[in-house]
Amino acid sequence: MLKVAVLGHGTVGSGVYEVFEKNAAQIAHTVGEPVEVKYVLDLRAFPELHYADKFVTDFEIIEKDPEILAVAEVMGGVGAAYAFSKRCLRAGKSVCTSNKELVAAHGEELLAIAKEHNVNYLFEASVGGGIPLIRPMIQCLAANQLQEICGILNGTTNYILTEMIRNGVSFDDALAEAQRRGYAEKDPTADIEGHDACRKICILADLAFGDKIDPEQVSCEGITQITLEDVAAARRMGYAIKLVGRAKRTEAGKVYACVAPHLIPETNPLASVEGVFNGIQVTGDMVGEVMFYGRGAGKHATASAVVADMMDALLHREKRRPIEWGNGAQELLLPLDDLVSAWYVRGEVDDALARCKTEGAAITIPMTVAERNAKLPHAEGAMRVL
Amino acid sequence: MLKVAVLGHGTVGSGVYEVFEKNAAQIAHTVGEPVEVKYVLDLRAFPELHYADKFVTDFEIIEKDPEILAVAEVMGGVGAAYAFSKRCLRAGKSVCTSNKELVAAHGEELLAIAKEHNVNYLFEASVGGGIPLIRPMIQCLAANQLQEICGILNGTTNYILTEMIRNGVSFDDALAEAQRRGYAEKDPTADIEGHDACRKICILADLAFGDKIDPEQVSCEGITQITLEDVAAARRMGYAIKLVGRAKRTEAGKVYACVAPHLIPETNPLASVEGVFNGIQVTGDMVGEVMFYGRGAGKHATASAVVADMMDALLHREKRRPIEWGNGAQELLLPLDDLVSAWYVRGEVDDALARCKTEGAAITIPMTVAERNAKLPHAEGAMRVL
Repeated sequence: MLKVAVLGHGTVGSGVYEVFEKNAAQIAHTVGEPVEVKYVLDLRAFPELHYADKFVTDFEIIEKDPEILAVAEVMGGVGAAYAFSKRCLRAGKSVCTSNKELVAAHGEELLAIAKEHNVNYLFEASVGGGIPLIRPMIQCLAANQLQEICGILNGTTNYILTEMIRNGVSFDDALAEAQRRGYAEKDPTADIEGHDACRKICILADLAFGDKIDPEQVSCEGITQITLEDVAAARRMGYAIKLVGRAKRTEAGKVYACVAPHLIPETNPLASVEGVFNGIQVTGDMVGEVMFYGRGAGKHATASAVVADMMDALLHREKRRPIEWGNGAQELLLPLDDLVSAWYVRGEVDDALARCKTEGAAITIPMTVAERNAKLPHAEGAMRVL
Repeated sequence: MLKVAVLGHGTVGSGVYEVFEKNAAQIAHTVGEPVEVKYVLDLRAFPELHYADKFVTDFEIIEKDPEILAVAEVMGGVGAAYAFSKRCLRAGKSVCTSNKELVAAHGEELLAIAKEHNVNYLFEASVGGGIPLIRPMIQCLAANQLQEICGILNGTTNYILTEMIRNGVSFDDALAEAQRRGYAEKDPTADIEGHDACRKICILADLAFGDKIDPEQVSCEGITQITLEDVAAARRMGYAIKLVGRAKRTEAGKVYACVAPHLIPETNPLASVEGVFNGIQVTGDMVGEVMFYGRGAGKHATASAVVADMMDALLHREKRRPIEWGNGAQELLLPLDDLVSAWYVRGEVDDALARCKTEGAAITIPMTVAERNAKLPHAEGAMRVL
């Protein structure tokens, strides 16, 4: 019997326990022996649960128990989660997490500690919930030079945009409905301003390009400025407006990265990713474009990815996965303003360039931001066209 | 320097060599040391190539060279490829392949030999070309009970159907164009009759359900009977006709499997998989539906998946991947006729059931084949609705 622990009994944490319980037989078959959740760490008590006796409030019990081989860190945040993750890794326990904030901020340090102690730090669930993405990217596409990652990484904003596109619902009403359905937090800032997507694209860029891309330095724009008129104008021209995280390697090996609403041509499969779903396109020099699609959140979906990582860590106890990236010293990031794009604009635009003057137009001459400002000084609502 | 060999220098085989050459630095970084293709086995000579000195015609040279740790079997077929794969595994060399015919026919035997000799038999490239699919399914979704796999697994037939749907091109003209573009073989039988898709869905079902599903016993229907009228009728009703491979587990643990044209609702992302692209939906009890999408064929895409498997085999020399399935003794397969579906039919149908009498109608009452025959004795062109 292999023993593991779960740090945090929120939505994902309780999901992790339930996945271990519900699919115990299959997990035992794959791992080679049964796996037991020995402890659940939470400051709250859950006396009504049939596994109430598993709860502990003192992290040291887990840290000092040599039986515990792997830990699910599903607390979130960069405070206690950061400290406990380091202490678990140093105690020789693999850590598997859905905590995108922590991975984006301190992933390289945690991976280095994991390497030093010959254990795993795995975080498949930190991007795209249960959608297989990180492992396929670094293993199945390992023979490729990765060139670009472009993804709809946040289900909340994609739900809001889908409501605006499909049903003509205003941003405010769509946000209120998302909150009512539990897709958006009471304070929706991290979603609608793009911070959540920004952490995720940074994690993918770190993995793809081998050096830390700091979320604080990545241009990050949300969806609060998009109007129903923009959505309608885009649709007339054959595009869907989507909030995407992009990271693109130049031939010189530098990287452009951003989170921003983009006009996506309807022929691109990303344009068909609707509602709370996520879709992530990865371009490799050998494989071309591949896309991963599914629900990017949800209790059991996310939990199942954490549990799969734990199974992998248990199976590969002797041989850890060689995941690492640099500390940012390579300074890969280029200023986004220099990335040439076709642009969508509205307002006062020059007739010679655009199809229409005021309603919203896609201008297909690739331009930097400075060139766009020079050529279209009065244009408003600029968005890049993918 | 780690040494490998390539068996076969056709399209994929030459691609494997080129991927090793072009991305040598990255491959060395990931694997931990450089990897050299020491031999290429082919009966033909290629004196014009700069690696002409690598070619051998005698398989024993590879088999008896203890330096060779992994072999790419990219010969195809179940003759020499089968014999050589067994001999490589028995000689302690991992084998990585794109040979779907061999994996579908003898995968369980080759996996058992690999296990016995503590080496890997890997075949990511056998389904979906370069699209990450098999490894994500068995690793990232390992905490799920897999419930259904439904995929567009053959790019040739999807190209033909897309031409029929989008451009009103007849089946014969679309096939001729596919042949002209190199998407279809001179003898297109294996593609258009569904045999290629059948091997692929069987491999995925073997992996998902743990016991051999024999392609010879799976109901397999191609696309030659689909008319432009069917395509148009489906489209009017909001469906796209796609050739899918399906494998579905029942609650009792048995399996329905088939290859057949299906009507896919336009809201299902599989309906948006166009041209030569593949899309594979996998449903797990925890994660729900996820989809993998990309080009399902192509020299470098397929080769890059073979090379990624070889890198993985080299990295995990001490600890092989625990992939296996049974020899078919569980007899999982149920007769397809008992699978209830909504149906599309045309011809003489009852007004009370269908929207129209002759042009093609979707009948949404779930029925088995016998029930359909009893209720709609004169209907023609029956296809299941997904």
